[in-house]
Amino acid sequence: MKFLDKLHKVQRKNRSLLCIGLDTDASKLPKSLGASKGAVVQFNRLIIEATSDLVCAYKLNLAFYESLGERGWRTLSETLAVIPQNVITIGDGKRGDIGNTAEQYAQALYEDFGFDAATVNPYMGFDSVEPFIRSDHNCAFVLALTSNEGSNDFQRLNIGGRPLYERIVQASVKWNTKKNVGLVVGATHPKELQPIRKLAPSLPILIPGIGKQGGDLESAVRYGTDKNGKLALINASRSILYASTGKDFATAARAEALQLRDQIQKYRDKFFS
Amino acid sequence: MKFLDKLHKVQRKNRSLLCIGLDTDASKLPKSLGASKGAVVQFNRLIIEATSDLVCAYKLNLAFYESLGERGWRTLSETLAVIPQNVITIGDGKRGDIGNTAEQYAQALYEDFGFDAATVNPYMGFDSVEPFIRSDHNCAFVLALTSNEGSNDFQRLNIGGRPLYERIVQASVKWNTKKNVGLVVGATHPKELQPIRKLAPSLPILIPGIGKQGGDLESAVRYGTDKNGKLALINASRSILYASTGKDFATAARAEALQLRDQIQKYRDKFFS
Repeated sequence: MKFLDKLHKVQRKNRSLLCIGLDTDASKLPKSLGASKGAVVQFNRLIIEATSDLVCAYKLNLAFYESLGERGWRTLSETLAVIPQNVITIGDGKRGDIGNTAEQYAQALYEDFGFDAATVNPYMGFDSVEPFIRSDHNCAFVLALTSNEGSNDFQRLNIGGRPLYERIVQASVKWNTKKNVGLVVGATHPKELQPIRKLAPSLPILIPGIGKQGGDLESAVRYGTDKNGKLALINASRSILYASTGKDFATAARAEALQLRDQIQKYRDKFFS
Repeated sequence: MKFLDKLHKVQRKNRSLLCIGLDTDASKLPKSLGASKGAVVQFNRLIIEATSDLVCAYKLNLAFYESLGERGWRTLSETLAVIPQNVITIGDGKRGDIGNTAEQYAQALYEDFGFDAATVNPYMGFDSVEPFIRSDHNCAFVLALTSNEGSNDFQRLNIGGRPLYERIVQASVKWNTKKNVGLVVGATHPKELQPIRKLAPSLPILIPGIGKQGGDLESAVRYGTDKNGKLALINASRSILYASTGKDFATAARAEALQLRDQIQKYRDKFFS
């Protein structure tokens, strides 16, 4: 199925723009899960089972799996196997490399793991992104204006009166010939979301930075979505995964996800109905 | 040992600025090795044994190991185990992510795998690089002007009369308080090496793009090194790994590496003696 069709379908079915980031830190697991090798998968499984009807996507931060060593690959695979087929999966590795290398990354993410989408770093230019957008069944979310403090170091540099990240957005729009390019814009930059959305009216925008990072949810919904209140994926990670550190972590995660999903829906109703 | 000390020591001992990129493509192995699970490790071992007295570093391109799936982690570990202790190892993943995630990547590369150095993508700013430069035993090579065609898409954008990559170089110099920041500059940009070296007189520069990518070796040596003809790591990958596709691949790789090492030495003698 084409990426955008799959996205629209699951957002409609689950009435949700919420994406949960499975940035599962093995050192932060509830004690009730023990310290066995399978504890991360078990944690992810319980989180997914408790929330998969409330989300449009899960974003798996590859760093947290790589740091598990040899077990990481299997943990990633086993986690992906638990995610219902109709929910979007995003391999969040922010990859970017020369053509023949980017091909290897794209193959690992899309073919071996079966992710629907990936995050990519645009600094190395088009040939580093191209292998990620060969099929319209996949989507590459290009880093434009990221949620972290360091986003101010280079992304806002002045290029002929406009910030660098706008050049990235414009290039991404140009690359979107197969309708399979998206953007990453942090919710921590509420003022920039509207002009970015104007430059890229039909690109999906992945918006991290809600929750622990203190991003602005109302602006994310109002300006991050398209003219129909769609095409945004609003990501929260730690605030959901670690809503409780006790045995009730999955129930607490569901409550947090439900609250966030519904808050997003309220803003959609407010601005788009 | 401090990174720079280790680099100087091995460059002196092996009289070499050569870095070999172990971008081992499982689909390009000599037929004589068969198609067993251990074939990549076996190939790497024979290449390393045939060349480790001719190099200052091996750069392992992580994409080629990730694409091996579950076996990738072990292949990487087993390859690292064969590399002599005195030779620099670079985990070439071009990572870059927000602080808590970059920490996971740095831990995986430096602590779990034991790499001496890593390549990092600066687009997300200082907090994405900082976890890679906490110890002066490690070095982060920051992407400045990469060897690929796409480097022209954004890296040369005009920021107040100077190209973007110079801003990255200047920031890298500022971040170099522990003498453990380096740069990546492609040999495919011979004219830019000299001004970059002027901006960063004491940073090691990793210079890919020699060989298959057609970079300019003479300029790489002349302008990529510091005032003493040091502090450059000149990388070749495919031209050495696949010097022969027959049973004699390791011998052919040695011959190619030797020729390249000696050619580099000739240029060093020409310009720095």
